Amino acid sequence: MSDSDRILATYDVRSTPEEVAGLARRIAYEQTVELPPALVTDPVVCERVLGRVETISSLDSGGGGHPPPGPDGASHRVTVSYSGELANGQLPQLLNLLYGNVSLYPGVALADFSLPPAVAVEFAGPRFGVEGLRRLTGVHGRPLLATALKPRGLPVAEYARIAGEFALGGGDLVKDDQNLVTDFAGFRERVLRCRDAVEGANVRSGRRCLYFPLVSAPLESIDLHFDLVQAAGLRGVLLCPAVLGLDTVRALAARRGLVLMGHPSLAGGLARGMSLPLLFGTLFRLAGVDISVFPDARGRFGFDAATCAAIRERLAAPLGELAPAWPCPAGGLPFDGLGAACAEYGPDTVLLVGGALLGHAPRVEDGTRAFAEGIAGCFPGHRIEPAAREEPPAGPEFLPFRPEFEWGGRESAPYRTAAADSDPAPFRGVRRVELVGRFGEPTGSDLRYFEVEAGGHTSRERHVHSHIIIGARGEGRLVTGNREVVVRPNDVAFLPPLEVHQLRNETKEPFGFFCIVDHLRDRPLPA
Amino acid sequence: MSDSDRILATYDVRSTPEEVAGLARRIAYEQTVELPPALVTDPVVCERVLGRVETISSLDSGGGGHPPPGPDGASHRVTVSYSGELANGQLPQLLNLLYGNVSLYPGVALADFSLPPAVAVEFAGPRFGVEGLRRLTGVHGRPLLATALKPRGLPVAEYARIAGEFALGGGDLVKDDQNLVTDFAGFRERVLRCRDAVEGANVRSGRRCLYFPLVSAPLESIDLHFDLVQAAGLRGVLLCPAVLGLDTVRALAARRGLVLMGHPSLAGGLARGMSLPLLFGTLFRLAGVDISVFPDARGRFGFDAATCAAIRERLAAPLGELAPAWPCPAGGLPFDGLGAACAEYGPDTVLLVGGALLGHAPRVEDGTRAFAEGIAGCFPGHRIEPAAREEPPAGPEFLPFRPEFEWGGRESAPYRTAAADSDPAPFRGVRRVELVGRFGEPTGSDLRYFEVEAGGHTSRERHVHSHIIIGARGEGRLVTGNREVVVRPNDVAFLPPLEVHQLRNETKEPFGFFCIVDHLRDRPLPA
Repeated sequence: MSDSDRILATYDVRSTPEEVAGLARRIAYEQTVELPPALVTDPVVCERVLGRVETISSLDSGGGGHPPPGPDGASHRVTVSYSGELANGQLPQLLNLLYGNVSLYPGVALADFSLPPAVAVEFAGPRFGVEGLRRLTGVHGRPLLATALKPRGLPVAEYARIAGEFALGGGDLVKDDQNLVTDFAGFRERVLRCRDAVEGANVRSGRRCLYFPLVSAPLESIDLHFDLVQAAGLRGVLLCPAVLGLDTVRALAARRGLVLMGHPSLAGGLARGMSLPLLFGTLFRLAGVDISVFPDARGRFGFDAATCAAIRERLAAPLGELAPAWPCPAGGLPFDGLGAACAEYGPDTVLLVGGALLGHAPRVEDGTRAFAEGIAGCFPGHRIEPAAREEPPAGPEFLPFRPEFEWGGRESAPYRTAAADSDPAPFRGVRRVELVGRFGEPTGSDLRYFEVEAGGHTSRERHVHSHIIIGARGEGRLVTGNREVVVRPNDVAFLPPLEVHQLRNETKEPFGFFCIVDHLRDRPLPA
Repeated sequence: MSDSDRILATYDVRSTPEEVAGLARRIAYEQTVELPPALVTDPVVCERVLGRVETISSLDSGGGGHPPPGPDGASHRVTVSYSGELANGQLPQLLNLLYGNVSLYPGVALADFSLPPAVAVEFAGPRFGVEGLRRLTGVHGRPLLATALKPRGLPVAEYARIAGEFALGGGDLVKDDQNLVTDFAGFRERVLRCRDAVEGANVRSGRRCLYFPLVSAPLESIDLHFDLVQAAGLRGVLLCPAVLGLDTVRALAARRGLVLMGHPSLAGGLARGMSLPLLFGTLFRLAGVDISVFPDARGRFGFDAATCAAIRERLAAPLGELAPAWPCPAGGLPFDGLGAACAEYGPDTVLLVGGALLGHAPRVEDGTRAFAEGIAGCFPGHRIEPAAREEPPAGPEFLPFRPEFEWGGRESAPYRTAAADSDPAPFRGVRRVELVGRFGEPTGSDLRYFEVEAGGHTSRERHVHSHIIIGARGEGRLVTGNREVVVRPNDVAFLPPLEVHQLRNETKEPFGFFCIVDHLRDRPLPA
């Protein structure tokens, strides 16, 4: 791997000129081999694993374009490079590599990093980004106006009223407050009623205001919440990347066709050891956030204007093949700060106004209109495309059974695996019909039908995912590590993880069975 | 809800005596209603949602038992109370409530919190804790000796050799380094070979050394990794709670019967805004960590002894019904520090020694023996129980089909739901056989057989989880929102999320079908 394929990490450290070289070397060891130098002798480890100190400079001599993130009194900037392979193309490991253990060093903050193309390409980033959200809203050439449903504790009807009035007044995006946490029934009621209010307003306005509910739930029910959001026809959600974990966000971005709006809750803890533009710009975007909410300098969190500008730049800067994401300054933007915010952030910005908008006029619709007109006035060339017709959601799918164990709408295929060319052939005389799971269905389980001809057999294999088998036709033998049973129609077998198994047909008639597996599953291992 | 049911959060803040009351009030608003006071008028919100400032004291007057966690120059300690209901019994929301937005305030750190019993009882905490791990290892009355497989980049055989020698030398627990990240094939190879090495050594020693592999993977494949660990018969894993997200750890603790060892990677970022004992003690334990790894004061991370003592105290202190967890000081414990560490931490401690143990003697076995004897010498009353026989892992399960659509090993039951008493009855003449999923099987999908008698029908309902249906007996009608089809044996239907559906039998014969659903799924909603 060449030097241009290395990850560069920049740390701002508190040290003395005499000790900084030693500290830099300790960082390089800590983040890679985590052993004293005397024990690091393996040449492969030294060449391919050990980090390298690239540069050390005094912070007095001027470093990056934004103030050092801390620690207080940082004196030097140290750059360490790591082999790109060490990130494994995985976000948790990238975080671990860049800042895992040295996050515990008292005087070391992560100021910046850069990824070589071969590493950046492993990250998909925002699914929608700037262009995707413009398509969904139909708004071009100006910032989007967003608000939050708050405070917690109001009846659902009140949130729905605010959302509907905001949409009627010309708002573009209304999201839940990050505190609106309830049980699933409460979530369902809020999602459906706010959706109805916004969609009702859209019918009247001809516009496409979006509603993004907050998904904050125990991990076990995150998918359930996303399922409901998608089934309800909504196009995005609000979530808190620092609370959920950045990789949970990345996985949701990859798996769901939804706009992800990232709220900064809890991120301030991380940000004390990390530069703010790096966290809210680069890292949130790597995790797939389409809209990154952060405190505007005019608000109540004490961010400075240079930091906000650097966050905006990071969200749009070239980064592998990643789409640019939206900056979303928030946290107390006042009405009279609107013009300045428009000038500073430019058109590709979501302006999130909560309390100031709700308190601007007795009716939310009027407050929204005032803000919307304020923004529109700053961008005379903007345009709004009328709402397009949505495709109806997919309905149920029915696959009628046909003679000879075929199904309408599905094709039968000979069974193939990567090992099919090996000798002796690991399977013989097997055909497969993929019934559910390979056709974009939102399913947790896949259903397949396998048929083994007379004298044939499946591969002898094992895998971590479990199997459920239901006999369907004829008679075959299920052979496992320590057992052999005959499978006839409607017999059921459960194969636990890593159980070796093979299905054999020693009769003169076809032997068919249904096989149910997890939709996300591992590849078979040799037995 | 009474005052004794409130959550108390303590913040260390940097302020002036004149401004501190206003800052405390801003924290109480920020963390609950997130609106200016003038807009918070709803009486229910004021009474049940808004946080309350309880006390404000100067930090000079002496506060908690350990040094303030920051920010640098903190001047006051502020206590704010929140209604326990606002945590929703959910860890993400508890984090959000305690420190979400104010993590972004420059001069505010979370120093402590306490949970009322009604809130603490919502968290299960460590599954094993101190007692559980003593049962697994058989070691009583002294600390456990642990080591880490490192550095990254060695051949797998080398890790297996180290693990085996450590087990032979009298070590209790060997874990992967938190950097040993590979693809799944590499993980599988390491897990199986290190397991074999440790189990082989255990057979020779008659002891029960444990091997905990690192699980660090994209969220999509975390379950796959855990499946492999459990299928391989291992009893625990190492993971990085600050990288994965605390709630991901909690979910894994709840769902998996594995010991969780928490590594502090990346946690230093969070800890700059939060007290270290709170993070590595209380929060990791709330998330279900059984063994909390943190830097020992003798090591290379600059932690002080008072902080380490406070972490240890937090892991064992009364906290709802939670089991005490193990402190695991690490990060450069030298051989000559062993006695002091034993004296300070006491017997209920995992002493993690990496580089010092590996470099102590040419053979890992000898280095391990030296450390093990050093520990044993400090606790003359300790005892080791011999290895007990493990139960063999569960094999495949076979459910033979019987006449009249019954299955061997399974009972048929009339179908019941919570709505069964409502009028008119939402279903009629339905029986159910639970085939797979209700009997502790490690499955992602459940298989059930339903049978509707002549003239009967199932409830008309919908849910977020999808359904797969396979016709099995007779003939029935599947009625959805916009469609009606006849289902006969081997017909397949897929019902997407929230599709309203009902199955009706309008014939004179029984109508039976298999139904496949996600193992973790929501309850039906009324149509």
